[in-house]
Amino acid sequence: MMEIVKMPSEMTAWSRKERSLGHSIGFVPTMGFFHEGHLALMRLAGQRADKVVASLFVNPTQFGPHEDLSNYPSDVARDCQLAEESGVAVLFVPDAETMYPEGACTTVAVNGLTRNLCGVDRPGHFDGVTTIVTKLFNIVQPDLAVFGRKDFQQLVVIRQMCRDLNIGVKIVGHPIVREADGLAMSSRNSYLTDSLREAALSLSRAIQLARKQTASGERDPGIMAASVRTLIDSYPDTAIDYIQFVDQHDLKAVKTITCDTVLALAVKIGGKVRLIDNGFLLDKDS
Amino acid sequence: MMEIVKMPSEMTAWSRKERSLGHSIGFVPTMGFFHEGHLALMRLAGQRADKVVASLFVNPTQFGPHEDLSNYPSDVARDCQLAEESGVAVLFVPDAETMYPEGACTTVAVNGLTRNLCGVDRPGHFDGVTTIVTKLFNIVQPDLAVFGRKDFQQLVVIRQMCRDLNIGVKIVGHPIVREADGLAMSSRNSYLTDSLREAALSLSRAIQLARKQTASGERDPGIMAASVRTLIDSYPDTAIDYIQFVDQHDLKAVKTITCDTVLALAVKIGGKVRLIDNGFLLDKDS
Repeated sequence: MMEIVKMPSEMTAWSRKERSLGHSIGFVPTMGFFHEGHLALMRLAGQRADKVVASLFVNPTQFGPHEDLSNYPSDVARDCQLAEESGVAVLFVPDAETMYPEGACTTVAVNGLTRNLCGVDRPGHFDGVTTIVTKLFNIVQPDLAVFGRKDFQQLVVIRQMCRDLNIGVKIVGHPIVREADGLAMSSRNSYLTDSLREAALSLSRAIQLARKQTASGERDPGIMAASVRTLIDSYPDTAIDYIQFVDQHDLKAVKTITCDTVLALAVKIGGKVRLIDNGFLLDKDS
Repeated sequence: MMEIVKMPSEMTAWSRKERSLGHSIGFVPTMGFFHEGHLALMRLAGQRADKVVASLFVNPTQFGPHEDLSNYPSDVARDCQLAEESGVAVLFVPDAETMYPEGACTTVAVNGLTRNLCGVDRPGHFDGVTTIVTKLFNIVQPDLAVFGRKDFQQLVVIRQMCRDLNIGVKIVGHPIVREADGLAMSSRNSYLTDSLREAALSLSRAIQLARKQTASGERDPGIMAASVRTLIDSYPDTAIDYIQFVDQHDLKAVKTITCDTVLALAVKIGGKVRLIDNGFLLDKDS
């Protein structure tokens, strides 16, 4: 039977007890409204650790003032059932007042890797992510934590944070989980109407196109970016935030495609729904 | 026999082993060149925990570009002997390349409490302190850590950081340790010539004056600041950085003196040696 824990002190006590019994702890931090992507992370955590903790917290500090915090999708009852079925031992569901009491003023920032890609359109977003992840790691004290590769920049930023702050949590990346037609799973897909759902496919199709071009020998990111742009623009209701070919470690734009290159995309669908997707182009699964 | 450890991984392994044996760990982070103030922190850690770890690391990121990093006093051999005599089980002495490898870019910042007092004259100083303390806490994994109250703002900032980031380390403050004539002990006192040594006494004498005024019923920080300023200015070779009457919790300037008020001083002696001192004015030991 899965436990639901609301208080950080209770969560930490649970983890201490499990560790004292010799159990390793795998952790999956989430903002809830679970889809198959989340559940795959939980199952992977269960393969790698003795006990799985997932957190469900819609973290206000990683949303910008004009973003979708207030209508972020939520269904806690369904989430509880799905998490339990996916092998989660404890679902940690703190409230915002507990996580950010009045007077809280400390920020963890990864300064190098958060300026490009999503950092441009979402200033402060990654500081919110790294601060809450630090807090959750300190509360849950896991041995490892699983993050999805759909939020690729987030994964790289968190790895860097752990290295820089000597945080002893092993960071495990999970491949992107996609719908049958290729759309990367995201809680924000629930915002899409049927017609916007078609436009949203432009992201995964753009990555497929770039992979094909690479397979045919193309290595010039400028040429490939132009094709990708043309493809995405050919769909109605798409507005490109960025098309970037970056190195998987430092997230810097590359001059030629290698097996370390990731194509990262952010596209606004229907003027409101901002979706991201990414993929390796050579010799790697996306 | 005290162990000297240089590698973070070895330090963490030691701590894990001690914890698994049921031993609590008390930690004293330092920049070395030990005086009686440091040794008192180590002895207090030994009273509160089963094993004491001290770190010796002159942290470059907490020095400004025109500060005294390059000639900060050092005597590691003497420090080792003094630490051992003070009951330290492990002295952790990492090098700068290990603590800040190339590409390190993560900062921990306590944004509210670091803008006034020493934060004005030393921009970035506290971000350097909170980042290295976070790293050291993650490496050493202590149950408690002891900090001197001479660096009063630092103590308040670190308490806030632990609260905000859910860091499970109990922070213990130690009263200021003073020379017989009242000078607060500091590694930087070694910079003082005999004549500057006299000027340096102006800080503790200013705090004594303020305490006397408070004992006589004075509660107006404006009036008291004027007296303190006159006293310090009456010494040659003194240049006041700040004289502030602040609340001990939020470090904001107060309008009337209470038992929560701290008088905090920073004075440059002989144009180069920046000294700080502080004290409660009512019903508290400094």
